[in-house]
Amino acid sequence: MRINGRGQKAPNLTKLLGNKPIIIVSNRGPAEFMQDETGDIVSRRGGGGLVTAMTAISEATHATWISTAMTDLERSMAKKGVLIGFPEENPLYNVRLVDIPKNVYDLYYNTISNPLLWFIHHYIWDLCNTPSFTEETHRAWEDGYIAANKLFAEAAARESLKLKNPIIMLQDYHLFLAASYIRELTNEPFLFHFTHIPWPEPDYMSILPTKVRLQVLKGMLANDIVGFQSRHYAGNFLLCCEALLGTQVNWRKKSVMWQKREVYVRTYPISIDHENLHKISESEKVQKYERLLLDENKGMSLVVRTDRSDPSKNIVRGFIAYDVLLTRHPKLKGKVKFLALLYPTRESIKEYKKYRREIETTVKDINERHGTEDWQPIHLRMKDDYPESVAALKHYDILLVNPIFDGMNLVAKEGPAVNRKDGVLILSENAGASSELGNSSIIVNPFDIEDTASALYRALTMPMHERQARAANLREVVEQNDSLKWLHYQLKDIMGLERRRMLEGV
Amino acid sequence: MRINGRGQKAPNLTKLLGNKPIIIVSNRGPAEFMQDETGDIVSRRGGGGLVTAMTAISEATHATWISTAMTDLERSMAKKGVLIGFPEENPLYNVRLVDIPKNVYDLYYNTISNPLLWFIHHYIWDLCNTPSFTEETHRAWEDGYIAANKLFAEAAARESLKLKNPIIMLQDYHLFLAASYIRELTNEPFLFHFTHIPWPEPDYMSILPTKVRLQVLKGMLANDIVGFQSRHYAGNFLLCCEALLGTQVNWRKKSVMWQKREVYVRTYPISIDHENLHKISESEKVQKYERLLLDENKGMSLVVRTDRSDPSKNIVRGFIAYDVLLTRHPKLKGKVKFLALLYPTRESIKEYKKYRREIETTVKDINERHGTEDWQPIHLRMKDDYPESVAALKHYDILLVNPIFDGMNLVAKEGPAVNRKDGVLILSENAGASSELGNSSIIVNPFDIEDTASALYRALTMPMHERQARAANLREVVEQNDSLKWLHYQLKDIMGLERRRMLEGV
Repeated sequence: MRINGRGQKAPNLTKLLGNKPIIIVSNRGPAEFMQDETGDIVSRRGGGGLVTAMTAISEATHATWISTAMTDLERSMAKKGVLIGFPEENPLYNVRLVDIPKNVYDLYYNTISNPLLWFIHHYIWDLCNTPSFTEETHRAWEDGYIAANKLFAEAAARESLKLKNPIIMLQDYHLFLAASYIRELTNEPFLFHFTHIPWPEPDYMSILPTKVRLQVLKGMLANDIVGFQSRHYAGNFLLCCEALLGTQVNWRKKSVMWQKREVYVRTYPISIDHENLHKISESEKVQKYERLLLDENKGMSLVVRTDRSDPSKNIVRGFIAYDVLLTRHPKLKGKVKFLALLYPTRESIKEYKKYRREIETTVKDINERHGTEDWQPIHLRMKDDYPESVAALKHYDILLVNPIFDGMNLVAKEGPAVNRKDGVLILSENAGASSELGNSSIIVNPFDIEDTASALYRALTMPMHERQARAANLREVVEQNDSLKWLHYQLKDIMGLERRRMLEGV
Repeated sequence: MRINGRGQKAPNLTKLLGNKPIIIVSNRGPAEFMQDETGDIVSRRGGGGLVTAMTAISEATHATWISTAMTDLERSMAKKGVLIGFPEENPLYNVRLVDIPKNVYDLYYNTISNPLLWFIHHYIWDLCNTPSFTEETHRAWEDGYIAANKLFAEAAARESLKLKNPIIMLQDYHLFLAASYIRELTNEPFLFHFTHIPWPEPDYMSILPTKVRLQVLKGMLANDIVGFQSRHYAGNFLLCCEALLGTQVNWRKKSVMWQKREVYVRTYPISIDHENLHKISESEKVQKYERLLLDENKGMSLVVRTDRSDPSKNIVRGFIAYDVLLTRHPKLKGKVKFLALLYPTRESIKEYKKYRREIETTVKDINERHGTEDWQPIHLRMKDDYPESVAALKHYDILLVNPIFDGMNLVAKEGPAVNRKDGVLILSENAGASSELGNSSIIVNPFDIEDTASALYRALTMPMHERQARAANLREVVEQNDSLKWLHYQLKDIMGLERRRMLEGV
């Protein structure tokens, strides 16, 4: 398999890394593989913030990317142990699929990762009623989450043994335990874990069964460095180590001593792949949607949101705030439109199904109460169509990003990067992005309808010179950082620590 | 009005206080006043942990106790400005009622204190759906909570000006702002606030509207000392000051510099009034219930819980764990009974009404599935009958105290103090009481049904010598502390700080 010369995309990274190889491990990989009519295996790129960022990184560093085999075809590819060069037309990195038995995957993904851990990390349990940990939960932890993490760890250790002192970069809440199992198999690689979602404070973390929360924290501390989206979430992790594990935290160094190793806790706010986003935003598909959008909404101020229909995104309260706005300022009727471009998600989880119904009922109610023959206050789309979302991002007057809690929220960065109207960003104080973008956006408390309604009104009536100044600031902040820089900071810390350890003979 | 010589009940306190007068301010006072058939005003003692503890303290220190006028009769007494000696037959302290207009009280109590603040402090919002802060919430904050706190502050300041450098002891989450308003009116008194409920971590506290959470923290920091039930909750408060107010915390001294004053954050675990509890437990009423109880449950192991039917008490998960126990160990059927003696509470709040229905449905379901002709697995009583609860506490084999989060939970102390059967205490790790009683009880994660079911089985099958050892330890810990000692520690800190300030000429 031919892999092009390293570092063409990012010469700085090559200089930094020298010959050090990189292994990325994440639940979802860069692509889905399928057979075409002739029986040939073809692939389709996946989406989402993690995949977009890690693809840029894999290409730049010629990494090996380990991820789950999702289909029968992929499982058979995994069993054969093939290493797939990617992208096919011009391979820049390798993909290795892990065969996780269906029942294990189901417990790991659909019982533990997405409902349990995701809800804990976003503070969205209704604690009087949920969660309740039963024998089934404990079994799903053992036979699902632990088992899957061991399979990922074995695959990573196997890859690692073929290479010389690689860096293993574990991704997100699916892999909290992988580092500890890798360490049992080989002590060679540098272990790095990045959490893309929020990290909760100790009282909320302590909801997890006692054994589970201890294993999660110990699993994290098996890494050499653990990374978070913001200083706040890094601080929450350190508080958890102190409160739940009883370890001593060095707050000045932001490190924890654990089993005679010093584990460093660092902050790397993720960003977007500008080049790729720019390419998409100029594509024919997006332009077609733009023409439609502008044609349908002539003279209308556009409030836009685009999210997975995840309860943590706080979609319903956004609509209610818009409802208050229209009630309070009836002159706005017919002059503003709310485009909610949502992607259906995790519909097998009952809270998600309920939330989707809640979204639809709320929209219907608001449209019925405020709508007229020629004007519909909210346009709701429930479909995964990224080009249409990008078209809307280019033309928003207001971008509403009001999650309850959110690791980063990349829409808050994509919007300002492509928007052509000096639109205003309304941003939840609990999105990780608020620490970088807070100064130039309107910050809201996501639970405060009144606050959000006022922010909508303020944004709609903001003088153009203020919009321009804010939009320019947002663009500047977003452009200063991209996903390669995000990786650069991680690798700089990794290489710095390796060098220091070598000098100290650790 | 004749008040007996000070300090007969607690000579140590008198020595400590010298002539320093004490003013207690709390939402609920020590008694309800009513007219008997002849038109004379008579009173009936109130209940609850706060009132019980503060009554002992008021009697011992001859305090003035300021609380709300709850009825038309009490409001007219408040308007006349009468100071009521109490208890009537042998006055030991004074009660001053504050006239809070009904509509103000309703907003302060039924919109802000009980649903909003209580839910925040116990982590029991369902964040995807509740709370939503609307114009009404903001108005209730201004016209209810702030207004009521000002009225309490005015009453306290008026009392204070009549006395020489009094100590004002503000109680609980109803009065987070009172100190700041008292400080505007007079700088004379020493201001002390005690929070009886948990204090949440910053991310959860930040759910409150921005203005509200800042006012709460600033209101608390208008005190000279703020007290909490456990080191954990005191730590959470300090974290909130740091994260939400941006103040610098001195973690070694556990203090915060605020407006050129040093505010001390201290821990005083509340306890019970042993003397009073002992008296009640020997009363004829209790003995009558005991005879009934023993007669009805001959040879039966008794699992007891007694709580307000508050969602934070986690009553449903307790039943579900018992259900798992019976399913897993069918031999226990007919040999064990669960007595759930609950007090209806706050039934105007929809979450409480829903929770009560949930309790009733769960009990019905379990009784139907496991019950036989001669045996009902759960006996549920929904009635405020303290003597019956005390009778049950005297005879439990297991006392289940599994709140989601709880400031202290006095049942966990009352039980071991009166129990005659060396019963086992199963205690939530999130009850404040767990830091004192954790070693001798079985600690459970309240969200973990499996853990709780195992704890029930372990307790039911525990060898008698282990039960005896644990029960003896629990009794010892509980007896070492009582509500007067709780006050003693507070006053010691207050007087120490006063003395230091005098020496330093602050």
